[in-house]
Amino acid sequence: MKIMDSSKQEVVQALKNAKITICVIGLGRIGLPTAAVLADAGAQVLGVDVNNEVVEQVNSCKYGFEDEPGLNQLIEKVTEEGKLAADIDTSAAVAKSDVVIICVPTPVGRNKVPNYNPIIEASRNVAKTLRKDSLIIIESTVGPGTVEGLIIPLLEKQTKMTAGKDFGIVSCPERASPGEILHHLRTLPRIVGGIDTRSTEAAAVLLESALGIQMIRVGSPKVANAIKLTENIFRDVNIALMNEFAILYEKLGVDIMEVIDACATKWNFIPHYPGAGVGGPCLPVNSYYLMEEGAKIGYIPRLIQMAREINDKMPKHVITLVEEALKDVGKLICESKIAILGVSYKPDICDLRMTPIECIYNHLKERGVSISIYDPMFKGRNVFQTKASETLAEAVKGADCILIGIAHKEFRNLDLEALAKLSNMPTVLVDAGRVVMKDKAREHGFLYRGIGASNET
Amino acid sequence: MKIMDSSKQEVVQALKNAKITICVIGLGRIGLPTAAVLADAGAQVLGVDVNNEVVEQVNSCKYGFEDEPGLNQLIEKVTEEGKLAADIDTSAAVAKSDVVIICVPTPVGRNKVPNYNPIIEASRNVAKTLRKDSLIIIESTVGPGTVEGLIIPLLEKQTKMTAGKDFGIVSCPERASPGEILHHLRTLPRIVGGIDTRSTEAAAVLLESALGIQMIRVGSPKVANAIKLTENIFRDVNIALMNEFAILYEKLGVDIMEVIDACATKWNFIPHYPGAGVGGPCLPVNSYYLMEEGAKIGYIPRLIQMAREINDKMPKHVITLVEEALKDVGKLICESKIAILGVSYKPDICDLRMTPIECIYNHLKERGVSISIYDPMFKGRNVFQTKASETLAEAVKGADCILIGIAHKEFRNLDLEALAKLSNMPTVLVDAGRVVMKDKAREHGFLYRGIGASNET
Repeated sequence: MKIMDSSKQEVVQALKNAKITICVIGLGRIGLPTAAVLADAGAQVLGVDVNNEVVEQVNSCKYGFEDEPGLNQLIEKVTEEGKLAADIDTSAAVAKSDVVIICVPTPVGRNKVPNYNPIIEASRNVAKTLRKDSLIIIESTVGPGTVEGLIIPLLEKQTKMTAGKDFGIVSCPERASPGEILHHLRTLPRIVGGIDTRSTEAAAVLLESALGIQMIRVGSPKVANAIKLTENIFRDVNIALMNEFAILYEKLGVDIMEVIDACATKWNFIPHYPGAGVGGPCLPVNSYYLMEEGAKIGYIPRLIQMAREINDKMPKHVITLVEEALKDVGKLICESKIAILGVSYKPDICDLRMTPIECIYNHLKERGVSISIYDPMFKGRNVFQTKASETLAEAVKGADCILIGIAHKEFRNLDLEALAKLSNMPTVLVDAGRVVMKDKAREHGFLYRGIGASNET
Repeated sequence: MKIMDSSKQEVVQALKNAKITICVIGLGRIGLPTAAVLADAGAQVLGVDVNNEVVEQVNSCKYGFEDEPGLNQLIEKVTEEGKLAADIDTSAAVAKSDVVIICVPTPVGRNKVPNYNPIIEASRNVAKTLRKDSLIIIESTVGPGTVEGLIIPLLEKQTKMTAGKDFGIVSCPERASPGEILHHLRTLPRIVGGIDTRSTEAAAVLLESALGIQMIRVGSPKVANAIKLTENIFRDVNIALMNEFAILYEKLGVDIMEVIDACATKWNFIPHYPGAGVGGPCLPVNSYYLMEEGAKIGYIPRLIQMAREINDKMPKHVITLVEEALKDVGKLICESKIAILGVSYKPDICDLRMTPIECIYNHLKERGVSISIYDPMFKGRNVFQTKASETLAEAVKGADCILIGIAHKEFRNLDLEALAKLSNMPTVLVDAGRVVMKDKAREHGFLYRGIGASNET
């Protein structure tokens, strides 16, 4: 169908009659669910990924996410109905599509500079076969101005078409949170900002019709990306603030968790929690997209920069807690066995992307520490350069230190008595997830240290 | 009555029968409303202030706050009923009281170090006549540990009594917001942390009974103050973050207000707004109470410190906007007349404490700028070292620059046509309160500049 200038009624009808073909490029944690919900809404969806293994697994219903409720069933359903098919050839899929959605990752390099190669590569392939009057929706998060300054010129040059006139293009950054992707895709309002109002309107009408969500129309792709970055940087800075409070309150003998719970009774406070660091594909990198744009015009957002520094230093703080606690029970860290419980970057998801626990692991490894890992999401699987234990007991056996890396639900009811027996007492319990009560840990003979806990002995 | 160890039923009964006498020290924006609501709840309240003028005005019902809905009527009511009387003599009032509430200011000095002299002085006077088994409630905000390390030792030494055993003492920092004090005192949960659970319980029962509010019991005065500071520093840091975004987005051509509105559609975002700086008796100083405690143990909370720096620099940013805008219309700042609209530290209150507009005023004055001031709360009154105009028209007449300092409601519907006629066109409109639409200002011939506005010409 001709998606540009279509009314909501026409889009609803087209979805009903399977007359819209959408190409979704990048079948990761955002792209694949996006493809699935659009297919479920009636669109004919062509999924594209550069990884052939992913393509084959999607087509044979063997791919999915064990930590996304309802998602795998949905993927299976739409694949079996023939509504979703994956391919490795972007240009072939784009040639058949009314709408192209770009969901490729936008990581930062080692030097903390955004790496736009995946989105540039995707755009190049899109340009080869982009149809006139089609619509490009960029879900990948990029720096404000990157769509206008980098992607559109590239597309226009290669297609010899004019954005706005010959094809529509918008930024519509995803806002869904891993572990709740399906729910969020179908309920959260989405921000959409196009190169012109015609593009904005076309994308808004499509997603409103397909997903039943509220669309927030903004002035440009630049503004849409500024919004996405502001949301995430807000979280990164507030986590950094709580990390800073946590370190200070440890020393002042105040428990940050008691503080946060009480603050949350005020109408204008929103809780964030300290931890071993900040991981995932967004928060640790989004600030750098903005800092890059700032650097171009000579303005360094120093608060945002410092928040990143603070969060990046939290793994080191955890190691300090471990080392000092071990010293307090007369053990040397390099001669100790440490059981790390929980390695994912946030609770109850099966995702290691940029997890701060990896920094902790690597640092301990370098110092010759003997490490075991247990994570309910990674039982017996390869994690970092080691194999995770099948059971909690196996990991904790003989440990001098139990380090709770992340607050998985399972860890909220740890059998401390059993852990005390299994471990090599006197054992240190370092709680970066703040899931164990200090008093209970002490009752069972552990030396307890928690991030932001009042750590008097 | 004996307040320590009283049940809720006993306190309710005692309030009903006017058997509780409460001394409230410090009759400012928090102390006086506190005194009034407690008197209204049935207590016999003795208000104390070091300022004899305040004392006399309270007793003759001539004192009050024009920006606190319902408060003056309440003060009048309880004074006329004989439930509230003010005095200048702390010790005399304390001698008659079951409960002593300390509400004196805790400012910081020029060197940004907390000035605890008012609370030390008040405590000394309390100690002279403090009755056995009475309860001291400290509402003033102080650094975590200050009650335990400074106030209690002072009280114990002078009274020769033991805190916890012979008298109760708690920190119960106020959380009310100027402009809504009465409403907040009667609805917001309060944090209470005592030197022992007996003190905590006594204060919680009293305030629950008198005000019908939820009391959040925490482990110590130290924790109670940490909570209060965390709440306010959270706000200060988030305003700083929005100020940082604002400055960056001005340069990137993105409007911060469009960004904040859109971000607010996400469940885990809470809006804060940029402005000319951060004023009032709490936010500009609370960070320093915490930094002082941090300094004692060798830990500088750098994010908190940087947020203060950013907020303190906002007046300078406003001046830059003014100066550059004037230059763009071919005028020199030092030869211009600037009309400042709005001088209070937050919208719709009549309060100049630490208002950032004063920094702007002083800086412009130093540069020889001709300044007029209009504020609906300060019509014809002395503001800074000048007399505010009686009318908006009077202030704006002949102005080369209209600077909106704060977002008073009245400024949301400015008659731009009239202002254009009154002012000395070409006029610049610098909007630190973000109350004027840029397009409208331009329609009327103004050169518009706003904090965080996309400031292309």
